[in-house]
Amino acid sequence: MPPTNPGRRRALTDAAIELLAGSGVHGLTHRAVEQAAGLPQGTASNYFRTREALLLAVAERVSELHLADMAEATRQAEATADGIGQTVELLAESLFGAATVLRTRYLAIFELQLEAVRRPAMAPALAGLQDTALRLTAGHHADLALPIPRDRVATLVMLYAGALFTLVTAPPESITREGVHEIAHAIVQGALSGTSADNTTSP
Amino acid sequence: MPPTNPGRRRALTDAAIELLAGSGVHGLTHRAVEQAAGLPQGTASNYFRTREALLLAVAERVSELHLADMAEATRQAEATADGIGQTVELLAESLFGAATVLRTRYLAIFELQLEAVRRPAMAPALAGLQDTALRLTAGHHADLALPIPRDRVATLVMLYAGALFTLVTAPPESITREGVHEIAHAIVQGALSGTSADNTTSP
Repeated sequence: MPPTNPGRRRALTDAAIELLAGSGVHGLTHRAVEQAAGLPQGTASNYFRTREALLLAVAERVSELHLADMAEATRQAEATADGIGQTVELLAESLFGAATVLRTRYLAIFELQLEAVRRPAMAPALAGLQDTALRLTAGHHADLALPIPRDRVATLVMLYAGALFTLVTAPPESITREGVHEIAHAIVQGALSGTSADNTTSP
Repeated sequence: MPPTNPGRRRALTDAAIELLAGSGVHGLTHRAVEQAAGLPQGTASNYFRTREALLLAVAERVSELHLADMAEATRQAEATADGIGQTVELLAESLFGAATVLRTRYLAIFELQLEAVRRPAMAPALAGLQDTALRLTAGHHADLALPIPRDRVATLVMLYAGALFTLVTAPPESITREGVHEIAHAIVQGALSGTSADNTTSP
């Protein structure tokens, strides 16, 4: 029977997130993870039989943390008349936190995304997590009656994730609330701007 | 005297780009690079004394290739009345190429960006390359009288780079011209949309 202590499992995945961000995917070994978590040798292998299982557990944990934060931000927000302004504020707040205090969490997920290019077996699981995040994000938008049409939420999420990659790999001291707010504004306006067929010469 | 055969240097950096994309930053050793380039042992160390020098040479080469492609696209384009539509077309074309036939080149640069987080000594050189790219991009926009204001080109470039990260790490079969066109449209509209102070409640 595999071990099921949720506290230990969480300690292992949280240590793995820090290791990924700090030393890259190569620094992530079962031994390094259990040492960083202060757990006895063999613990990590008991929870995650393979390296891939360990990598996927990190992706699941980051996704879980991200979704919990989004749900909390949605609970705290209230629908207002200024839907666009509110969307920008929510996005700016989330993006600023992700690029600063939560930086290692997102560095870890970007490491995993690049690793998945080289480990195609990981790709479906990562894609599944992204689909879930997208569905829940669209749900939050609907709950708050935000003005991004449902079929444009994918564009919003993509631009958000992309901007975040640039932010977490930039020197931390270059990140300002003002700069992040401007990016959030551009992302929301971009996602709002309808399909490209509306006002370009392309079919 | 350091060796200065530009053909060899290029063969080494081009091999390094493929290695980075294929095996990640850990796969990039002097030995692996010279083997992949079919050059004798010791060649890579002659050209790039340290691991950091090798990593930076890759970044410089990717930047050089990217800028040459942009300059070529600018030469081929002509200023048209439909500046926004033209900007979207140019961006969509560039983004689609970068995410498909040129995928390894950009996977390599994203690997380097994450590695620079762990090797702060690399950061200034990478930032310098990004500044140069930004200046040249703004110049191309001016040459073609494209409608993105000069102070918004940084936002455009950031959203472009971010979207590209998502695209190159997605399953290649999921990338379509239509999808990329829609993203390019959102990026251009986002960058065009003025500063966030214009229409949000934030200062």
